[in-house]
Amino acid sequence: MTEDAVRVPVERLRAFAQAAFEGVGVAPPDAAIAAEVLLASDLRGIESHGVGRLKMYYDWIKKGIISPRVRFEVVREGPTTAVVDAHTSLGHPVAHRAMELAIAKARAYGVGAVAVRNSSHYGIAGYYARMAAEVGMIGLAFTNARPSVAPTFGVEPMLGTNPIAFACPTDEPFPFLFDAATSITQRGKIEVLAREGKPTPAGWVVDRSGRLATDTAAILQGIPRELYALLPLGGAGEEMGGHKGYGLATMVEILCAGLSSGAFLWALSGMERDGTPRPHRLAHFFLAVGVEAFVPLDEFKGTVGGILRELRGAAKAPGAERIYTAGEKGHAREERIRREGVPLPPSLQRELRQIGAELGLPVPF
Amino acid sequence: MTEDAVRVPVERLRAFAQAAFEGVGVAPPDAAIAAEVLLASDLRGIESHGVGRLKMYYDWIKKGIISPRVRFEVVREGPTTAVVDAHTSLGHPVAHRAMELAIAKARAYGVGAVAVRNSSHYGIAGYYARMAAEVGMIGLAFTNARPSVAPTFGVEPMLGTNPIAFACPTDEPFPFLFDAATSITQRGKIEVLAREGKPTPAGWVVDRSGRLATDTAAILQGIPRELYALLPLGGAGEEMGGHKGYGLATMVEILCAGLSSGAFLWALSGMERDGTPRPHRLAHFFLAVGVEAFVPLDEFKGTVGGILRELRGAAKAPGAERIYTAGEKGHAREERIRREGVPLPPSLQRELRQIGAELGLPVPF
Repeated sequence: MTEDAVRVPVERLRAFAQAAFEGVGVAPPDAAIAAEVLLASDLRGIESHGVGRLKMYYDWIKKGIISPRVRFEVVREGPTTAVVDAHTSLGHPVAHRAMELAIAKARAYGVGAVAVRNSSHYGIAGYYARMAAEVGMIGLAFTNARPSVAPTFGVEPMLGTNPIAFACPTDEPFPFLFDAATSITQRGKIEVLAREGKPTPAGWVVDRSGRLATDTAAILQGIPRELYALLPLGGAGEEMGGHKGYGLATMVEILCAGLSSGAFLWALSGMERDGTPRPHRLAHFFLAVGVEAFVPLDEFKGTVGGILRELRGAAKAPGAERIYTAGEKGHAREERIRREGVPLPPSLQRELRQIGAELGLPVPF
Repeated sequence: MTEDAVRVPVERLRAFAQAAFEGVGVAPPDAAIAAEVLLASDLRGIESHGVGRLKMYYDWIKKGIISPRVRFEVVREGPTTAVVDAHTSLGHPVAHRAMELAIAKARAYGVGAVAVRNSSHYGIAGYYARMAAEVGMIGLAFTNARPSVAPTFGVEPMLGTNPIAFACPTDEPFPFLFDAATSITQRGKIEVLAREGKPTPAGWVVDRSGRLATDTAAILQGIPRELYALLPLGGAGEEMGGHKGYGLATMVEILCAGLSSGAFLWALSGMERDGTPRPHRLAHFFLAVGVEAFVPLDEFKGTVGGILRELRGAAKAPGAERIYTAGEKGHAREERIRREGVPLPPSLQRELRQIGAELGLPVPF
């Protein structure tokens, strides 16, 4: 077998990921969900959150940082609300059940909201928001994350990339799907630049002296020692609205940790003071809004479709090919990758081979 | 009386604004709310949305663009949800009642959500979010607005500044209060630069050729002819995350217009095709989240206070005085302006004198 990038059919890769989760003790239905969420990310072209992270989860489960036995303890519940303690379980099945619970509450009462504490990374937030869109609702999903983003006028990583995901049905064949970190970018994109030998755009990252850092290799080496921080959406200072990205990230932290009495900011670092790894104890927040409690679903779909088509029809900047709305690019990638398979670079092939060897699983390439 | 800037006590200015609204036919309780929201904006130092806009509302009411008789027709209602048709009423009392309704539903069921169509400008979104914070809840307020912001890769104003406001109680003497347009900036800030004779920072505004515009006078002259558009948070293109600000603005448009079957984008221009003014027909969305449905209120306040203090304690950029959290600067201004009065520049004094002369009201300065 050569060391070139290979393309692997989605279903085969999903089956391998599921078997890998099962191999470290995750129950089959939970392993299926975790694998499904990873592949959903690869399908949208978000490689930073796809099977490229399988080994991270696999290693964390083996080290006891993530518990493979999924617990979903509802510690408080009302007609439209619930608080869940996940006891450091694998995040994907936890988040899946939390959004299912929010959807059930929205079906009964119009709106459903579920906060989760002591969870772990759950992959792409957009997956869970989309679950609501697929049943005719608006879905929102949030999570906090380990410290990597500096507050405005700060240089120290404090907030996570704290994404906001929003999905809803439209009258087109795929949902409106917005899923974005509240920072300008995330570490995965800087890793891509490193592989391509490119500098980091000035404005993404700040160093401890407050300067915008562009040396990609130095940034990646220095991030674990907290020498660099990502900047919030809007960038450094306030002139371009950096305080807005910072405020949105704080809002996400409050929705997740505040409503679940969960851990926040530096408590999510995944390390004891002496550097020993420990669970990240992430907190999430899920909101489902039953569209039909407001307006007939077809009417809503038509309004949203009308908004999206009017936006796409705006006058374009010279040289711009077209105007997109959120979810379009991911949908196009999904169709292509479903046909062509998921591209696996050599480094990822090695990781999967190692997992396969340890668990006695044949790799799917 | 000289033409210098004067400072007017808050209560006197509020009484004048209320009398002015009453003078054009707004019922006293509704006029009181509208005046209160305008002054709340001046108190936070957001002069673009304060009494500086009184004449705009006054003129629009006189011209029939805004209806002074406030109608609040609940066209659909469920346990946690409502859709309201405001029949082009003055927006502030409509929004106030909508958030009160959302709060009542959240008190009964945990979460409350109200969508409004056919409304008009309602002042600062943060006012309504804060109403929830003052009764121990999380409040969110959104509105669409007349087209002024270009989508990513576009040069035409399509979206409004579509703000996101989020407020919640903390264990400190004032709430966490985030209230921001999803564009980098708004027209009011460019008007301030014009008064100061300053150029517009490159990155705020794009012209029809896709260039970043900095000529403040030309921008203000060209905006009504749609020659310029504001840029979404994150700026032009995708490198600094402009597609994220654009996506958030679209999310706000969907929440407001989608859930209310309201008007959107160019339909909010306030003009017929021949240029005749007409109602803007804005749509709003309000969400109240009952904190105590999730966790004890004091526990929530402690978590949020802990998040805010940890953020303020982050390592600062060299030369930075301190790190703020959302709501702090506005709170400090509020205390100062309550002591010192609201500053009224000569142009605003003239506007208020004109209103006073027309209605036979003594001006408060």
